[in-house]
Formats: sequence, structure tokens, C-alpha cells
Amino acid sequence: MKITGTTRVFMILGDPVAQVRAPEVYNHLFERHGVDAVVVPMKVPAADLAGFVRHTLKAQNVGGLWITIPHKGALVGLVDRCDPLASIAGAVNAVRRNEDGSTDGALFDGVGFVKGLEHFGFALAGKRVLVLGAGGGGHAVAAALLQRGAGFVAVHNRSLDRAEALVSRLKDSAGPRAGVAENADPSGYDLIVNCTSQGLKPGDPLPVDVSRIPAGSTLVDIIMSREPTPLLKACAERGIAAHPGFEMLVQQVPEYLRFFGMPQMAQILQQDLSEVRELLAPR
Amino acid sequence: MKITGTTRVFMILGDPVAQVRAPEVYNHLFERHGVDAVVVPMKVPAADLAGFVRHTLKAQNVGGLWITIPHKGALVGLVDRCDPLASIAGAVNAVRRNEDGSTDGALFDGVGFVKGLEHFGFALAGKRVLVLGAGGGGHAVAAALLQRGAGFVAVHNRSLDRAEALVSRLKDSAGPRAGVAENADPSGYDLIVNCTSQGLKPGDPLPVDVSRIPAGSTLVDIIMSREPTPLLKACAERGIAAHPGFEMLVQQVPEYLRFFGMPQMAQILQQDLSEVRELLAPR
Repeated sequence: MKITGTTRVFMILGDPVAQVRAPEVYNHLFERHGVDAVVVPMKVPAADLAGFVRHTLKAQNVGGLWITIPHKGALVGLVDRCDPLASIAGAVNAVRRNEDGSTDGALFDGVGFVKGLEHFGFALAGKRVLVLGAGGGGHAVAAALLQRGAGFVAVHNRSLDRAEALVSRLKDSAGPRAGVAENADPSGYDLIVNCTSQGLKPGDPLPVDVSRIPAGSTLVDIIMSREPTPLLKACAERGIAAHPGFEMLVQQVPEYLRFFGMPQMAQILQQDLSEVRELLAPR
Repeated sequence: MKITGTTRVFMILGDPVAQVRAPEVYNHLFERHGVDAVVVPMKVPAADLAGFVRHTLKAQNVGGLWITIPHKGALVGLVDRCDPLASIAGAVNAVRRNEDGSTDGALFDGVGFVKGLEHFGFALAGKRVLVLGAGGGGHAVAAALLQRGAGFVAVHNRSLDRAEALVSRLKDSAGPRAGVAENADPSGYDLIVNCTSQGLKPGDPLPVDVSRIPAGSTLVDIIMSREPTPLLKACAERGIAAHPGFEMLVQQVPEYLRFFGMPQMAQILQQDLSEVRELLAPR
């Protein structure tokens, strides 16, 4: 990779930032596809985030930002415009600097998730989905499911008020296709999505009673983990189609590139994401 | 070069910025010497400079800034502390972010110039120097000459008030070793330094009457030019030792690296600058 005075600069903002993979993944892709751009990490404390975003994006060769923990929520209030998924989910994971200096925020977590479903051969149109967890992941996934054609999305959360708050936002555009699930019973759903953090620690109770998942239904556990989670293992033992969250990350890559004005590269990668899967593979 | 989440990020600030060489030069050196750091260009308009510097340096993995045209003067007022040469010259070309978030500014143009003299075999101690031009280059060179042991430095400028203003600043630390030269007569000087822009355009009159330069004296023309300037050619014809400004750039490189906390790399390069000369060679 050759950085010169003409290189467009992108940044990934987080705190901590040492763990981020975006510089390795995207710089590799930029080099392979002959794009004069670079991604660098920026360790920005939350207290300094607003000033950093406002002033750093004054640099005219900055193309945009990747946003990671803990800044996704705060960015919603720091960009000039948000796409609908970012607005509903209350989170931004990409910021684009336009030519006139204005900024657009977007959230690709949920889009990546839905594109992952297609990759698994799951046809979403009209299907009934149970989303477990109304945190950041649950917000992003539920909003995208409804935008991309799910028939009905029920959200369950241990503290029901969080589920109710999310569903109330979802209803603004999805109306009666969104609802609260008062318990985690998976009966009657075509797709169950675990967006809780249950299963991260050994000995955690499973977030759903696997024995009650209908035969022929599909489960996705969005927990990012090198090993299959206990939930995924339990499903496999019962013969239920179950997928990890990894593909959600993979499928976001072309979305970011399109958003940042690199449509050709996005299209080439979308046709064959095997290179992206290798780059993102857990180490 | 591999950029990861742990990489220290440096920036070069200018407007325009497409022409800067720092990313190519320093990224090559970082890679060769196994330093986990990267330099990226930042095209920052003057109106946005103050906010950019204050807020971008909040990112804790930013190591510092290289400063180029037109921002060198403004940076003096935007850092917490300036080294004496930067203060006298009223210009900064390097900003370091310290661990506690405070910033130090420094100016290496003049230091690079004086180290270049050593490289040419010119012993500065006690010598009489005529500096032609009281712009940015003249300020940096005159201040460093006095700090590094010149016996007397006279400054000439077409509008004498600029020369007087510079000399008045120089006298604060150099006392009677600094003075104004009312004309450009080189008689009686051991070293003549052209810091004017005369000689950039073909047909420009020479900034000094070469026939009056004493035999055995030395001239340096700090104009950066791929070809020898008319002034250098005229000196060569008269057998006067004359050197271009290129070495001034070369000799700054170890200074920057030491300032940015990379003393080992600085020491290795200082012992053999041939690699740096190749990297900086005009294209």
C-alpha cells in the first residue's frame, strides 16, 4: 500500500481501538482493487467524541468514519442526516463526509444480518421472526428485518419495557407488523434471532428453549465467537438450521464500500465474498 | 506496511496537500525500521485549522503532526509550548502530542540547514553570515545559525522593515551578534544564504552580486528546485563553493524522528542518510 498526498483517509473511531480489524481488512481490499484510500485507527475518548467528529471531518480529504464501541449511539446526534435504519436503531456505524462537508450517518449491522439470511438460503418475505434482546443488536436486526420484508417481528427482552420502547419505534414505519413478545417461547416463528449476550459465558442459561423451536425453523445467534455458542450446539443436536453471526459482518463490507462511494469495488466483492470471509475470519 | 488497531497515527497538515512527500518518505522508513506508525495527509483549510488541531489531537493514538504551507505560522498559537527556534521564527513544522495530551511545537528547517553546513564541511563557529530574505526561510535559518554558534548574522531584505523586525527578535537571545544589512553586498561574509524567492522564475535578477562574493566564501541557495538555480550556476562559474537547499530537508529527518520519540531510528539514519536522500530526491 502506497500512501501519498492524494490518498483519501478514512478512520475507525473506538475506545479502545487496539482490537479493531477494519484497517487490516479494508486496506488489504483497497490495495488489491487499486483504490487510493487508507483506514487508520483513532482512539477517541467518549468525552472528546463530539469535537473530534465535527472538526476532524473538516479535512477535505477525509472520506468518512467507521464507528465502533462505545460511540455508535452518540454518532446519531453528531451527523447532519441519518438513514432510516440508523434513526430507528439509534445507532450509526458509518459516517460519510460529502463533498460539501456535510455528513451522512448509516447503520449496516441489520442490513448485513438480512443479507446473511439470503446467503443461508432463508427467504425472509412474509416470515414470522422472534428477536431475543432489545439492545444494540436487537434494534439493528429488528429494524432491518421489517424494512426488508419480514411478515411479523416480535421482540422479547427480559426487562419488557426495553422491548416495548423498541417496538414503539418500529411501529412508526412497520405498524402492526411489529409487536412485543412477553416470553421467549419460539413456537410459531419461522426465524429466531438471539441478540442477547446470553451464551457469552460458559454456564449461561440458553436464551430460548430449544426443544420448543418448530422443526423447519431457522435460528441465528449473532454473538461473535470463535467457537460455536452453546445455543448453536443445542440447535445442531436437534437438527435445527442454526447459523453464527459472522456472515452479518461479511455482508456489511460491500455496503460500507458503496456508501463511501466505491460502487465498482462493492459490486465485485458482492459477487464473491470469499476473500472478505478470509480477511474477517476470527484469529 | 501493516496498519492495525495498535498503530500510532501521524498526519501532515497542508492546503493543498497533494504535493507532500512525508507519507511516502516516513512510511517507507517506518516499515524498514519496524516501527508501528503511519503518516497520512490531511487537507485542512486555514479557517478550520485551529479546531482541527485542538480536537483531532484528542485521539490518544495520534503521535503528532507535520505542518506545511500555509499553516506553519498559525501553529505557533495552537500548541501548548514552542521550542526557542520556533518561537523566534514564528513558525512550527512539527507538533508532538505528549502522553498527557499536551502539545509541543518545534521548527526543524533551520536546524536542518545548519546540519547541512556540517555535511558540506563548513565550520560555522564564529563565522560571519549574510542572510538574504526575511521571510519564513530567513527567519528559520537566521535563528538556527545564531543558536548553533555563528559569530555574526546580518539579515538583508528588500523592504528593510521586515529585516529590522526579524533582527529585533534575534537580538533578544543573540544580542549584538545579529544585525541588519542595509544592502546585499556580500563582501566580508564567510557564508551567504539566499532565502529570497529570487531565482525561482527564469530571468529573475540574482539576489546578490556574485562577483563580489569573497574567494573562499560559501553560498547556499535554499530554493528547492530540481535543477541548479541561476545563482548556484553563477557561483560555480566563479569557483565559489555553492550548495542547494536539498540537504536542509534531508538533515531534518532524524530531528523529526527524535522529536516524535523514535531516538534509535533517528540515530541509525543520522549515521547514514543516503537512504533518506534517495527518498527525498526531486522527481
